Amino acid sequence: MAAPLAPVEVIERSRRGEHVDAASVASFVRSWLDGTADDAQMAAWCMVACLRGLEREQVEALTGALIASGDRLELGSLGPTGDTHSTGGVGDSTTLAAAPLAAALGVRVAKMSGRGLAHTGGTIDKLEAIPGFQVELPLGRFVRQVRETGIALTAQTARLTPGDRRLYALRDATGTVPASGLIAASIMSKKLAGGAGAIALDVKAGSGSLFASREEAIATAELMAELARPWGRHVRWTVTAMDQPLGRCVGNALEVGEAAEVLRGGGPPDLRDLAVRVAAELAEAAGVVPEGQGPDRAREALRSGAALDAAERWVEAQDGDPDVWTDPAALPAAPLRLEVPAPGDGWLAAVEARGIGEAARWLGAGRLHPEQSVDPAVGLELLAKVGDEISSGAPVARVHARDEWAAERAVEMVAGCLRVAPEAVPAPELVIAEGGGGA
Amino acid sequence: MAAPLAPVEVIERSRRGEHVDAASVASFVRSWLDGTADDAQMAAWCMVACLRGLEREQVEALTGALIASGDRLELGSLGPTGDTHSTGGVGDSTTLAAAPLAAALGVRVAKMSGRGLAHTGGTIDKLEAIPGFQVELPLGRFVRQVRETGIALTAQTARLTPGDRRLYALRDATGTVPASGLIAASIMSKKLAGGAGAIALDVKAGSGSLFASREEAIATAELMAELARPWGRHVRWTVTAMDQPLGRCVGNALEVGEAAEVLRGGGPPDLRDLAVRVAAELAEAAGVVPEGQGPDRAREALRSGAALDAAERWVEAQDGDPDVWTDPAALPAAPLRLEVPAPGDGWLAAVEARGIGEAARWLGAGRLHPEQSVDPAVGLELLAKVGDEISSGAPVARVHARDEWAAERAVEMVAGCLRVAPEAVPAPELVIAEGGGGA
Repeated sequence: MAAPLAPVEVIERSRRGEHVDAASVASFVRSWLDGTADDAQMAAWCMVACLRGLEREQVEALTGALIASGDRLELGSLGPTGDTHSTGGVGDSTTLAAAPLAAALGVRVAKMSGRGLAHTGGTIDKLEAIPGFQVELPLGRFVRQVRETGIALTAQTARLTPGDRRLYALRDATGTVPASGLIAASIMSKKLAGGAGAIALDVKAGSGSLFASREEAIATAELMAELARPWGRHVRWTVTAMDQPLGRCVGNALEVGEAAEVLRGGGPPDLRDLAVRVAAELAEAAGVVPEGQGPDRAREALRSGAALDAAERWVEAQDGDPDVWTDPAALPAAPLRLEVPAPGDGWLAAVEARGIGEAARWLGAGRLHPEQSVDPAVGLELLAKVGDEISSGAPVARVHARDEWAAERAVEMVAGCLRVAPEAVPAPELVIAEGGGGA
Repeated sequence: MAAPLAPVEVIERSRRGEHVDAASVASFVRSWLDGTADDAQMAAWCMVACLRGLEREQVEALTGALIASGDRLELGSLGPTGDTHSTGGVGDSTTLAAAPLAAALGVRVAKMSGRGLAHTGGTIDKLEAIPGFQVELPLGRFVRQVRETGIALTAQTARLTPGDRRLYALRDATGTVPASGLIAASIMSKKLAGGAGAIALDVKAGSGSLFASREEAIATAELMAELARPWGRHVRWTVTAMDQPLGRCVGNALEVGEAAEVLRGGGPPDLRDLAVRVAAELAEAAGVVPEGQGPDRAREALRSGAALDAAERWVEAQDGDPDVWTDPAALPAAPLRLEVPAPGDGWLAAVEARGIGEAARWLGAGRLHPEQSVDPAVGLELLAKVGDEISSGAPVARVHARDEWAAERAVEMVAGCLRVAPEAVPAPELVIAEGGGGA
């Protein structure tokens, strides 16, 4: 076997569009992790990845090197374990409902989540809206809780894939985030190091997501499934539309409240359907429910209250107030509410997700810079979704704000995200594509 | 005027192929120079420049920021000043002959040069083959020598364009050298900070040069001429072929000896013609010779001995042995010579310049790593050039080496660069394109 290429050769060959073998990519990434190759070299290579793409074996090599940068959890003794991931959207509280729902179906849910990025929300920020909830579990407690309660969810720890954390910070600073291969390696290194046997991926496509193009979202989903194969994990993926926000609520406590509606058997249809789908995929992939029976079993668990029970056990185990699932008053609420009037008569043709996410971020639900803390109470509700008929001046959204000044600007921002059509517009399909892979 | 974009916005917009205004590029480069933007961000942007190119106003902004990173020489009081630059090739001793030739025509030659890079030679390394020659002149002495002797040549100083030096090191380490806009900004920032009123550029195209494509070489030459316009400088450029080495000698002392032949009115025709052309362009651009009369006046200065006189004054002023121009024995010589036999009967169809440069580097004429010192005596002579008829076994090249082991390997390397055709091959044209611009 030839010696691996030096870092600068890896970069130059990639720049010229020539093949670079997996061993050389792995060696380059390890050199960067141990400090013999520097950030500038890694940034240059990441930019090539953005503009020219990576080969599959290169993404595998990167994923392997990121996993090897830290510990790996071994969950084999816990039974059928499962993990989920969403590539991030606006109003996406799916995990809050899908995780306990999957637990109710018998999956041992062992999940690590992140905080919000840019205009998209993060599951950890949402969970922190639950009074008392501990989002940082030491790994020993995390594993014990999966065994005893059947579900645990913690913030990412520096012990797993610390290299991914460093790489993500570098990509963020150098404008090299949107490369399908880098995204796939980042997500899957965390999922594979996390140890769960079954993984359900929700890959968002559309203006409010990381992937503007549906083709790119599908290709990335397929690539992620491939990355799991050599690790013996079962992956199911769905590509879903993120042109308008998911559900009706955007904001941390508001989204917990909406997930609670789903767990009680109600909630907005798109959010409920997606939670059912993700939980069903996870249960089938983990082998706790026969193939094809997942969706029916999940809907039954919502009806029977089994999902709600699992959610209560989960929140209690992490020191949170389990009343949030049944009593909206248990969640923090913003002092001020202001309605957004419909800008005309007709049918709502677009609710631009990115702009809605920016409005929520402006209100304080997200961060404008990384050290900022988020306000759990603020956000907004959509009272109409794409395809709904609306009348000029009637409320189409409601802003939940800390003060009037913030509320008024947010109302303007939301209004700027709406488009009205003079003729009926069909409600868009949520699911764009689905598939599976891995072991 | 809008505020300049933040570094990461400059990178992201450029990555997406969107317009970024010159002020934002200038601000980004300044931020990098003062340490608020980091190397990784600059490397990512340089990679975009390699893969997507830069707009002209962006290159102007980069050039301006690099010039502003250090001092600028003011040579206005010295009369008609001139400077030359070659983008680097193999066996290219043009400057050694053209600089004193232009001085003989009345141009006050004020030139800074670099050392060899990769397989290409550098003028400073060649001048150091002259016993006693001082290549590092303090700026005060440099300017005084231009005034008193009419010619001075020094190694680049850290006082002029220190930002370019940093940027070049970063590009070298991150595989982001070959971007036409970055190359143009690097060269022209040094030329413009150097202060000369007339600039003659020799841009090499072909397998042994920075530009494989002639179109790219021409576009870069035109861009460099444009960059000089706002600075009131007169630029002439020539794009010349660098598929086979220029002249017959490759190696530091050997090339000084070959330039001496040109200054005495002889030397290989291609090298002599190019030296005449560069000196003539510089003299016309500086206004010391009427338009169109440069070549005749330059040939006359070679015949009359005026160029040789200027060369002797120059070397003496820099403490070197002026006998090198008239006595080959005044130059260092390698102990061992080994001939390369022609691999067949026919016509020499190719002498691959990059490979010849690598053979010279292997012998010690160039560096394999930046801190290495070069051996002034070693190198090689080509006894035949493309288009010459050759007979199997007859010598086509001669290696000058320090020891037998190095010589034998170099003979093999040279042999690997030769191609023989069974039918007559025309001698290639040296000049591909020419033009002018600037003020």
